[in-house]
Amino acid sequence: MEVEIKFRVKIEDIKPKIEAIAQFDHEEVQDDLYFSIPLPSLLRIRRIVNRNENILGYKLIKDSRNEEFDEIEVKVDDFEKTREILKRLGFKEDVRIKKHRYVYKLDDVTFELNRVEGLGDFLDIEVISNDPEKAKEKIWKIAGMLRLSEEDVEPRLYQELMKEITSR
Amino acid sequence: MEVEIKFRVKIEDIKPKIEAIAQFDHEEVQDDLYFSIPLPSLLRIRRIVNRNENILGYKLIKDSRNEEFDEIEVKVDDFEKTREILKRLGFKEDVRIKKHRYVYKLDDVTFELNRVEGLGDFLDIEVISNDPEKAKEKIWKIAGMLRLSEEDVEPRLYQELMKEITSR
Repeated sequence: MEVEIKFRVKIEDIKPKIEAIAQFDHEEVQDDLYFSIPLPSLLRIRRIVNRNENILGYKLIKDSRNEEFDEIEVKVDDFEKTREILKRLGFKEDVRIKKHRYVYKLDDVTFELNRVEGLGDFLDIEVISNDPEKAKEKIWKIAGMLRLSEEDVEPRLYQELMKEITSR
Repeated sequence: MEVEIKFRVKIEDIKPKIEAIAQFDHEEVQDDLYFSIPLPSLLRIRRIVNRNENILGYKLIKDSRNEEFDEIEVKVDDFEKTREILKRLGFKEDVRIKKHRYVYKLDDVTFELNRVEGLGDFLDIEVISNDPEKAKEKIWKIAGMLRLSEEDVEPRLYQELMKEITSR
């Protein structure tokens, strides 16, 4: 299971703090197309622009705070054809989320520092684990080291945030 | 559009006749998993066993004789994960079709000579064209060269044939 907590941050402030404790891994320019399916399921095609890769992803949200996910991902060789297959199968397109992601690692903890077009900066701290409580303890310990607290948490999904903006 | 006509054949009889007019291209061991979706749509994951490739495919049947198809295919990097995503999205598994396919080419005509597990031998003669009538004329001209006639045509889909067998 993927356990992650999302914090609202400012990249400029948080980046040096992350770099003091974790190792830079890689960066990605992501262009995500979400399809309308009923929560707690999520369906998207992700284009990783800077690697010319496409990933079909299904997520199932396991908790009420959007912190625990079952995730299944497969690489697909063509974004537009995958999009067309999903449309033909009856799935309607929902929002598009574009972000620039810097990924850092510290042991089994992944830091995804995201600048999201139209939404701002966020840090997802992620641990793959079958023990969500223990994983969250670890995440909170690291969040403390970065001076992040409960009030910095953003429990809403990116696509929920994006819909709020576009429906204004 | 994919235009193809399927004939019931015996591989031993037809193979030398095809080899006399067309060029051998490649062979494939295919393991197709079909999902239950309402006709005229078809949804499958194809594992090409001998190339370790997987293809997610959607087909829309455009005619009453199952000879004209719109087809969209994408390569996926994992058969089981793709299967799991489709199941999570609510698609039920239908039949599995396994075949050994010999592919020959003559200009824009593709010969797919199939030995299908449990169903027998078939030859699909295929042309990609936006003019189905002209494509069928071409297919019938070649079928004549192979001594195949209207009574050799099998208009049913492989998965229909497989369901007839398994429901006996």
